[in-house]
Amino acid sequence: MSDTEHKPVTAGFVVIGDEILSGRTKDKNIGYLASFLTERGIDLSEVRIVPDSQGMIVEAVNTLRSRYTYVFTSGGIGPTHDDITADAIAAAFGVSIDKDPRAMAILEAHYPPGEFTPARQRMARIPEGADLIENVASAAPGFRIENVHVMAGVPYIMQAMLDALAPTLKGGQHMHSHAIDVPLPESRIAEKLAEVQKNFPETSIGSYPRSKDGVFSTQVVVRSRHLDVLRDATSAVETLVASATGKSI
Amino acid sequence: MSDTEHKPVTAGFVVIGDEILSGRTKDKNIGYLASFLTERGIDLSEVRIVPDSQGMIVEAVNTLRSRYTYVFTSGGIGPTHDDITADAIAAAFGVSIDKDPRAMAILEAHYPPGEFTPARQRMARIPEGADLIENVASAAPGFRIENVHVMAGVPYIMQAMLDALAPTLKGGQHMHSHAIDVPLPESRIAEKLAEVQKNFPETSIGSYPRSKDGVFSTQVVVRSRHLDVLRDATSAVETLVASATGKSI
Repeated sequence: MSDTEHKPVTAGFVVIGDEILSGRTKDKNIGYLASFLTERGIDLSEVRIVPDSQGMIVEAVNTLRSRYTYVFTSGGIGPTHDDITADAIAAAFGVSIDKDPRAMAILEAHYPPGEFTPARQRMARIPEGADLIENVASAAPGFRIENVHVMAGVPYIMQAMLDALAPTLKGGQHMHSHAIDVPLPESRIAEKLAEVQKNFPETSIGSYPRSKDGVFSTQVVVRSRHLDVLRDATSAVETLVASATGKSI
Repeated sequence: MSDTEHKPVTAGFVVIGDEILSGRTKDKNIGYLASFLTERGIDLSEVRIVPDSQGMIVEAVNTLRSRYTYVFTSGGIGPTHDDITADAIAAAFGVSIDKDPRAMAILEAHYPPGEFTPARQRMARIPEGADLIENVASAAPGFRIENVHVMAGVPYIMQAMLDALAPTLKGGQHMHSHAIDVPLPESRIAEKLAEVQKNFPETSIGSYPRSKDGVFSTQVVVRSRHLDVLRDATSAVETLVASATGKSI
């Protein structure tokens, strides 16, 4: 496989839930999914956090699914009245939704006799044409319809679903990265760094300011899909840092 | 002031930065801003996380500023080549951008003689017509243009900027909330809870599953702008919980 054969594999993420937007629940899924996708060479390109509103969910999902290789959603697939994601996804795709026999069988087997209540049966509502995503954590499945993966919002359940669906994802070319700690405020290296970025268009060079006890420093992260380019760009950054540090002594 | 005079005050938030989407940096600003706005009665209605891409920043800012009372952005206003937010905001508004005399004066006073380098002067680039947002943490100001507030991405600097701009925000009617801990899995109360929600349309009732050591419980959060409605809806939830718990004993 040559280094240049691959098209980037991209993803969008829709986080669904009033509780995230009110600040009551601090999201833990974005950082997790970002790292999960980066490890697989998939670029997370956009995230939207939307309320429990069918219109907002439909807009976000339809925009992102036409834009990116994959879409993931988290939240809103439980048994209560505020869990409206499955219906919203059906609306986004213009398909019907009903209790799915496969999901019904999974949930029926999971609950003690007599405890598979109508509320719990709500969790078996799956849009027509979707595949189930296994949930080893708490049984009630997620689902995939075309390129959209619908998962629970509770972090450990979302993570179990990601593990289950991971083998179905086509990975992209791995993005390699190298971090360089620079004992200077970023403005001291900014101009030279911009030149390195210009000289290495196949890299993405990020500069991240840090401060500890009033002392400013910088972490420079060089990223590239091509190991040789990464190596050369990293050397160029290290050279400029050595020169800037030398001057400052 | 009567309870019903107010229109909701709404907000959108655009988080800018490749490092959030790659998972390298875990965002801390969304949860902070969400709580900050909720305390002031402002509804955070949508969040978008976009990369360091002018097109994506312009799209997100222009969509959200036409949709919500306020827009906030974080990230991309430092001195390095990957800091493109100020230029993107100027493009979004179709105005020019140049070194701002007020920002130049602040930064010139901040740095020791001879250290106000061209890279640092980049941080004085402010779109035409914008007001500065004071930055007591590290001097380089944010700015406000119409209803859009542009802030730094480093959490303690963003927080300082929020404190500075807070007095300029018109607060909405405070959203009151009450949380009820229910020692039952949410599916056990789901149907009755849906009825309470239907009976109290001026509330938003959220149901959040929890699990600890394999025991499932639920936190129900009732939210309303009207204290009397909140009280009545909360009683209705407590009655249903007492009844459901009683049954289960």
